[in-house]
Amino acid sequence: MSYRNSGRKPDELRDVSLSTGVNPYAEGSCQISWGHTKVLCTASVQANVPRWLKGQGKGWLTAEYGMLPRATGERVDREAVKGKQGGRTVEIQRLIGRSLRSVCDLAVLDGFTLYIDCDVLVADGGTRVASITGAYVAAALAVQDMMAKGQIARNPFVSEVAAVSCGLSEQGAILDMDYGEDSTTIADGNFVMDGRGNWIELQMTAEQRPLGHIERDTMMVLAEKGISELIALQRAALAAV
Amino acid sequence: MSYRNSGRKPDELRDVSLSTGVNPYAEGSCQISWGHTKVLCTASVQANVPRWLKGQGKGWLTAEYGMLPRATGERVDREAVKGKQGGRTVEIQRLIGRSLRSVCDLAVLDGFTLYIDCDVLVADGGTRVASITGAYVAAALAVQDMMAKGQIARNPFVSEVAAVSCGLSEQGAILDMDYGEDSTTIADGNFVMDGRGNWIELQMTAEQRPLGHIERDTMMVLAEKGISELIALQRAALAAV
Amino acid sequence: MSYRNSGRKPDELRDVSLSTGVNPYAEGSCQISWGHTKVLCTASVQANVPRWLKGQGKGWLTAEYGMLPRATGERVDREAVKGKQGGRTVEIQRLIGRSLRSVCDLAVLDGFTLYIDCDVLVADGGTRVASITGAYVAAALAVQDMMAKGQIARNPFVSEVAAVSCGLSEQGAILDMDYGEDSTTIADGNFVMDGRGNWIELQMTAEQRPLGHIERDTMMVLAEKGISELIALQRAALAAV
Amino acid sequence: MSYRNSGRKPDELRDVSLSTGVNPYAEGSCQISWGHTKVLCTASVQANVPRWLKGQGKGWLTAEYGMLPRATGERVDREAVKGKQGGRTVEIQRLIGRSLRSVCDLAVLDGFTLYIDCDVLVADGGTRVASITGAYVAAALAVQDMMAKGQIARNPFVSEVAAVSCGLSEQGAILDMDYGEDSTTIADGNFVMDGRGNWIELQMTAEQRPLGHIERDTMMVLAEKGISELIALQRAALAAV
Amino acid sequence: MSYRNSGRKPDELRDVSLSTGVNPYAEGSCQISWGHTKVLCTASVQANVPRWLKGQGKGWLTAEYGMLPRATGERVDREAVKGKQGGRTVEIQRLIGRSLRSVCDLAVLDGFTLYIDCDVLVADGGTRVASITGAYVAAALAVQDMMAKGQIARNPFVSEVAAVSCGLSEQGAILDMDYGEDSTTIADGNFVMDGRGNWIELQMTAEQRPLGHIERDTMMVLAEKGISELIALQRAALAAV
Amino acid sequence: MSYRNSGRKPDELRDVSLSTGVNPYAEGSCQISWGHTKVLCTASVQANVPRWLKGQGKGWLTAEYGMLPRATGERVDREAVKGKQGGRTVEIQRLIGRSLRSVCDLAVLDGFTLYIDCDVLVADGGTRVASITGAYVAAALAVQDMMAKGQIARNPFVSEVAAVSCGLSEQGAILDMDYGEDSTTIADGNFVMDGRGNWIELQMTAEQRPLGHIERDTMMVLAEKGISELIALQRAALAAV
Repeated sequence: MSYRNSGRKPDELRDVSLSTGVNPYAEGSCQISWGHTKVLCTASVQANVPRWLKGQGKGWLTAEYGMLPRATGERVDREAVKGKQGGRTVEIQRLIGRSLRSVCDLAVLDGFTLYIDCDVLVADGGTRVASITGAYVAAALAVQDMMAKGQIARNPFVSEVAAVSCGLSEQGAILDMDYGEDSTTIADGNFVMDGRGNWIELQMTAEQRPLGHIERDTMMVLAEKGISELIALQRAALAAV
Repeated sequence: MSYRNSGRKPDELRDVSLSTGVNPYAEGSCQISWGHTKVLCTASVQANVPRWLKGQGKGWLTAEYGMLPRATGERVDREAVKGKQGGRTVEIQRLIGRSLRSVCDLAVLDGFTLYIDCDVLVADGGTRVASITGAYVAAALAVQDMMAKGQIARNPFVSEVAAVSCGLSEQGAILDMDYGEDSTTIADGNFVMDGRGNWIELQMTAEQRPLGHIERDTMMVLAEKGISELIALQRAALAAV
Repeated sequence: MSYRNSGRKPDELRDVSLSTGVNPYAEGSCQISWGHTKVLCTASVQANVPRWLKGQGKGWLTAEYGMLPRATGERVDREAVKGKQGGRTVEIQRLIGRSLRSVCDLAVLDGFTLYIDCDVLVADGGTRVASITGAYVAAALAVQDMMAKGQIARNPFVSEVAAVSCGLSEQGAILDMDYGEDSTTIADGNFVMDGRGNWIELQMTAEQRPLGHIERDTMMVLAEKGISELIALQRAALAAV
Repeated sequence: MSYRNSGRKPDELRDVSLSTGVNPYAEGSCQISWGHTKVLCTASVQANVPRWLKGQGKGWLTAEYGMLPRATGERVDREAVKGKQGGRTVEIQRLIGRSLRSVCDLAVLDGFTLYIDCDVLVADGGTRVASITGAYVAAALAVQDMMAKGQIARNPFVSEVAAVSCGLSEQGAILDMDYGEDSTTIADGNFVMDGRGNWIELQMTAEQRPLGHIERDTMMVLAEKGISELIALQRAALAAV
Repeated sequence: MSYRNSGRKPDELRDVSLSTGVNPYAEGSCQISWGHTKVLCTASVQANVPRWLKGQGKGWLTAEYGMLPRATGERVDREAVKGKQGGRTVEIQRLIGRSLRSVCDLAVLDGFTLYIDCDVLVADGGTRVASITGAYVAAALAVQDMMAKGQIARNPFVSEVAAVSCGLSEQGAILDMDYGEDSTTIADGNFVMDGRGNWIELQMTAEQRPLGHIERDTMMVLAEKGISELIALQRAALAAV
Repeated sequence: MSYRNSGRKPDELRDVSLSTGVNPYAEGSCQISWGHTKVLCTASVQANVPRWLKGQGKGWLTAEYGMLPRATGERVDREAVKGKQGGRTVEIQRLIGRSLRSVCDLAVLDGFTLYIDCDVLVADGGTRVASITGAYVAAALAVQDMMAKGQIARNPFVSEVAAVSCGLSEQGAILDMDYGEDSTTIADGNFVMDGRGNWIELQMTAEQRPLGHIERDTMMVLAEKGISELIALQRAALAAV
């Protein structure tokens, strides 16, 4: 019997599925469904690089993140109406871009920018880790398209990248919190790893009280298990294209 | 044989389908697929009214419109990043709100605001008319929810509302342009009507040259035919819930 | 006896006068007085084109619209202070630019931009149609100046352009509403035509209830009459320079 | 013979005229023509005070300044489009408000705000001093209207206020520079005085080189002469209403 | 012999000093010097809480972060001129606020907001961890002031909070990178702990390549050592007041 | 016995000290302490000029001004958070730039921009005059650095520049008001002079009532005395480097 409302085991992911080719124009696209959370990820190829990168023999990869106003239980104001992206949005899109760049050989992309857009249609927790996981699939498809067109000589991605959240409940660490779990968690962590089992980003935050060493380490162990399962899903989705 | 690339007859709509209940949180939701164009419409109920309407015995209905950056063939900048909604966006969302209010008895909504969000996932022409047509279905579902909860006494909508575009090609007026047709059209019209066959909004614009009277009238006739078919689809979708 | 407060007949314009040369610097200028409404229109010639138009053998014409804070009965906030142009302003200035471009051969303007500014000094209804009507006169004067200086080889305007509003009162359609009429109208239309009797833009909006076909058509008939009178005034004003 | 292009004597103002009642809605209005410079000034009465002033037994007077895009020889960008008022605009409107408040007993205005708008239609130098001089007339008319309506018990203005610019040319100090004189001046001063000959604001700026004491004092003497003439014009304009 | 340019051992902090009372107005203030880095931290007490917290029996603590334009080797644009805070700034100030709140019993602060400002005068790496470390001292002084004035009944801080950065060089993990070390680091971590040895925030980012498990753990060990030394410095500084 | 709270004589400055070299990166820097007021001034050399100055054989000098949120008795909102610089800030930074340019031969700076930043750490009145006085010292050090590097052939500054405020109290004119004096002053003046005793900028403003001629002149006499003392301090500070 589980102490999670969903009946999941502490180390059990929600159902995750990756649908590719959902946008007819984008060079790569993937809609990720992760429990109720749904994120539409597109990768757009642009034949130029940011001004500050010109002449350095490198391409660029960057990401933007958005959430539809009613993706959540209560409608939130549209950022385009408020006139700026909020702090949370900016943090997340910087994390997405950084994570994908960490497994991407930018020299291979010379002359091109990969523009990743992650737009959350429904949000039930974990939108940032779903965005990273789906964005990799969209980006991988876009670079396949670039190779097919002869724009680049080889795949710039040296490994996959996926991400998961963990939390600390009264009963112990749990993998992949939904919104309900996230709102009562003692601590919160987001973890990004590559397909070779190495760490790209770890972010752990005490929400209700600081953490001891064991609590800290248990969350990392759960994350590692979850990410290895997500990498397998990414490989299957890309193999099926 | 058709002179349209799609093989459609001059007075033939693209395939239109309305999927209801696509958002688990919104009081009403509908994703409209219209050819390749896809718009996600949600209707959110808020238990308050704008400050300027307080104490007048009325509710309110308003709409916002957005387009994902890669909804189109070329990626466009995200409005939340640019820091403001563009002129085209503002025009469209004002039109959506005005159209729905024209068939809505705001006195019935007293104390509540219906917040409509239309977000374009894929854009192949006609996003504003698809938004209006889908928004009505989302709004109709939201008011059913309100009636079920006892928030309002009866349906504030006195009729359906739907919209369609027409254009003028070298060979004559055509109903429901896709993006390719829209970019070469001589003139362009967007039409909004109610379910009783009355006119809510007419907007006709000469793109390449001013129009004669007959050209003007033919476009209105086509619009009327298209809208009557869309109203039928709306009724079917709502009846199936 | 008239059912209009002003005593006007249903198809009667207010007094309209066009004063040219009111700005000593602008290449073309015209102040239009239309009932109490007063709009100052200037046309400025700039020897460049927008970046996206470069190298296409074309010039450009664009318009901006503004209203002094106390142009209206109640002072409204200054848009420069609010930090952005409102939705209504953007809609109107896009309409002005589009209307003038529809009768302008941009190839003749190659290398130049005509910048139209319409600033409302006093607003008693009809400011957008007054702006279009006055803007044409200012622009026509500016192109005369360009021809005199040898900047362009011939007049890029293939016809005049003028605009008028119509409304639907309880007693039937009326031409050229003042502010008081506009605020109680059943429906509202703005119409733009050229000097050859062709249609450039039609915009009809149901304010209180949707319109039947006859109501729709009667408003268009009144508009046509009003615009033909305005075109005559434009010709007289330009002939008198 | 004059060393000024205009033929004016060093201590001679340009022609100044004050037209009152130019706006049918504003409680007070005045268009000032000063050489080619034209500024439309309105004074709007609002039955409230800023939040920070509430409950202090005082009213408020504030001013805004704007310039039409083609008021000047070269068109400048519209501030509403740029999304903010420039530094020069903000400086000027703060000066206008401060100058009028210095002769206004705000306790008399208790509960009301006088909102002054100065919009420059044509600019040939001296727009800020023309704005102050015209704004006083508009404000004086608005307070007459308030007294007539019984909103205030007596005139809050304890004196008139007017302003003038002076410059330093190679041949010596000159009163009331036009744009051509202003663009080559050695030093530049703007002076505000009341109708009793007292100083409200002095601003002198070295443009090409710092000033000696005599140069400084001569400019102040010219200013005093010019302002006394402007006060006389204000009195005549108000007496004629 | 050290492989660090500074001659420091891998687990050696730069010189850190904490000067209290540097601002005569703030309820608490502390300038932290950390190597060349200098951050001025103030804590301001405001007798109100944010709107969304009203009536919940809690106070609030929030932080803002800024950097003088020439704090760095190359001048960077002033955020007030650019019109918004950059993504990095927002991330940092959210981290500062979150870190201090994690050791603060907000119920004790009921009715009050502690506003922390961290402004970087000179930046040689580690400005975010210096800000957190200095901010705690400023905040601790402010709550002493509040207790002395009887505004709160007891110290809301249940422990100290301090932070440090670690990096991964070619030779292994290093504690407390300066700017030169930070710009060539393989990976980068920022760590926040409390005075009882518990973890508040861990953020590790792969800059050049993903990290193995041992590399990850070594950085955490160094962080723990550095933070324990910083906590000792905080205690000494507060004891000396 | 003095009628000033501080015990100062009417013509007595507060203690002023100038610390040079306070920023390790800036080409010139100076922290000025003036009573409790503290302003950190840096001068940054950039090897380019604004676009509008290119090809004219001149360099440029410009200034920005900021105030830390808790520089004052009550915390004020951070301008970077509000999204724009306030009117007062813009006025002050324009004054600083204009004052320094008036004694600077920009032709000597050809190809370079001197970027002055004045950031107020503590504000007890007189921050604008302290900024000008400190900015000159920072700028003078930066041009020494430029000469030492051979970037410019000679010192572009033809004289020193310093500034002081004066006020009018009930007992007569006073030199160098602190915040308490400034908030009750009858009139307020800021004065900028060069090291040769010439006037660069005079700004006098009636706060409570307009000024007579003698009051006006007495304030100018006090200013002249104060500035001559400040120039001496600048010379001493620069000689000591």
